[in-house]
Amino acid sequence: MSRITLEQANTIVTAALAKGRELGLKPLSVAVLDAGSHLIAFQRQDGSSTLRPQIAVGKAASALALGVSSRKIADMAAERPSFIASLGPIAAHGIIPAAGGVIVVGADGTSVGAVGITGDTSDNDEACALAGIAAAGLLAQR
Amino acid sequence: MSRITLEQANTIVTAALAKGRELGLKPLSVAVLDAGSHLIAFQRQDGSSTLRPQIAVGKAASALALGVSSRKIADMAAERPSFIASLGPIAAHGIIPAAGGVIVVGADGTSVGAVGITGDTSDNDEACALAGIAAAGLLAQR
Amino acid sequence: MSRITLEQANTIVTAALAKGRELGLKPLSVAVLDAGSHLIAFQRQDGSSTLRPQIAVGKAASALALGVSSRKIADMAAERPSFIASLGPIAAHGIIPAAGGVIVVGADGTSVGAVGITGDTSDNDEACALAGIAAAGLLAQR
Amino acid sequence: MSRITLEQANTIVTAALAKGRELGLKPLSVAVLDAGSHLIAFQRQDGSSTLRPQIAVGKAASALALGVSSRKIADMAAERPSFIASLGPIAAHGIIPAAGGVIVVGADGTSVGAVGITGDTSDNDEACALAGIAAAGLLAQR
Repeated sequence: MSRITLEQANTIVTAALAKGRELGLKPLSVAVLDAGSHLIAFQRQDGSSTLRPQIAVGKAASALALGVSSRKIADMAAERPSFIASLGPIAAHGIIPAAGGVIVVGADGTSVGAVGITGDTSDNDEACALAGIAAAGLLAQR
Repeated sequence: MSRITLEQANTIVTAALAKGRELGLKPLSVAVLDAGSHLIAFQRQDGSSTLRPQIAVGKAASALALGVSSRKIADMAAERPSFIASLGPIAAHGIIPAAGGVIVVGADGTSVGAVGITGDTSDNDEACALAGIAAAGLLAQR
Repeated sequence: MSRITLEQANTIVTAALAKGRELGLKPLSVAVLDAGSHLIAFQRQDGSSTLRPQIAVGKAASALALGVSSRKIADMAAERPSFIASLGPIAAHGIIPAAGGVIVVGADGTSVGAVGITGDTSDNDEACALAGIAAAGLLAQR
Repeated sequence: MSRITLEQANTIVTAALAKGRELGLKPLSVAVLDAGSHLIAFQRQDGSSTLRPQIAVGKAASALALGVSSRKIADMAAERPSFIASLGPIAAHGIIPAAGGVIVVGADGTSVGAVGITGDTSDNDEACALAGIAAAGLLAQR
């Protein structure tokens, strides 16, 4: 598999939102991007604030931009705040240093896309992303 | 009703894509925006090119930006090309003068959001937007 | 094959520049992008003007953005100038309506990247792109 | 010599990538810019993430923008983080405070271009940039 299909992307979104409901989380926004950071599917739950689409897309695109999860980007930002901050203006969707952006990899370990979630705590956002990826039978980058 | 719910937005997207399949159209991208031009739901069918998310969102946002369908914006562009072109750089999602962006109105005629579709001819894109809005039991702006 | 390798991209660039020399063309700039419009390889010949990197990248990215060659985008711009012009501000690399941007497709017809060339006439730019793609044993989109 | 030729730029890129292989580094992206910050040559190795072109170009352009290596810009950012951060939005390619962007100077000490590398640690990125410049018989700014 070298691409995430729309059917798989919809499964990711649906399962991620189901996980959020199961955990009793705040309204979530879920974005699924292809390997080139172009949006495949997106849903924003009722009661979400206005920047959520950009944050969800931004987390996923940040992961693809640097090749690591947005959780690791948060770690990098703690160590090198000026460097990570400097990338925002040159990245089409910004660089978001907060968990919730997870790369999806194919069987050979190369990225085929990414999932970005925002709305609750970053840890919970990421847990829903992982649940969504698993529900679609896909692999999250280690 | 003063807002499009995520459930309604998903119905719009699903019905619009079903209409596209029924008509044998090319792969479509469908965006549903709230009254403030913020994305609620989006799906891009397999085989679509990379700018489709921006075009779908842009058509819907253009309609909300000027208060008329993107079909009417195309008419305006034919009459006043420089004026319509001048709005692109100052509109967050651009101004797209092509049919396929349709405002959704409440019972009192005020806008509650918009639908934007791209992928086939502008006329077909718009037909799918109208089918989606109708399937959700909502009203398209006249 | 689902990705253009750096080795293939370098072959495309080298062969395109060789074709330009063979035809006695002006200094060329050649960009090879992956399917998501991210740059793989680029060379600009001595004596080229300053915007050539953006034009070469822009032609290739335009083709991927709309799913057709930049030659066809030029045709579209002749028919619908306001629509094509409106896409420039919402496309990360702009939309360039001039031949010289050619999509590279895999065996299944899906795009795996694109080549963009600028420097001489659009027809000559495109001829060099096609020569480069053929030299790498790859397929140009029909 | 007042300009980096394409032949020299290709030598820089090839030698920098060879150095990276010799050191067993992660996939690198290498950009060579002229004195006006316009791209001459670029290569991104297989397996690199999507923002690498902008980071490589950004490091080289940052060096030219401020007249010092991007390593020194990192030092400046440690001392004056707000000042360096403020320059990102007004610089066409951003300002990247991390080693790996090195100015190339002529015999008279004036800049004739710059090299930017990203992919491994900043120190390793810079070592490859210096190796590339030396291989082309050029001088790195002290």
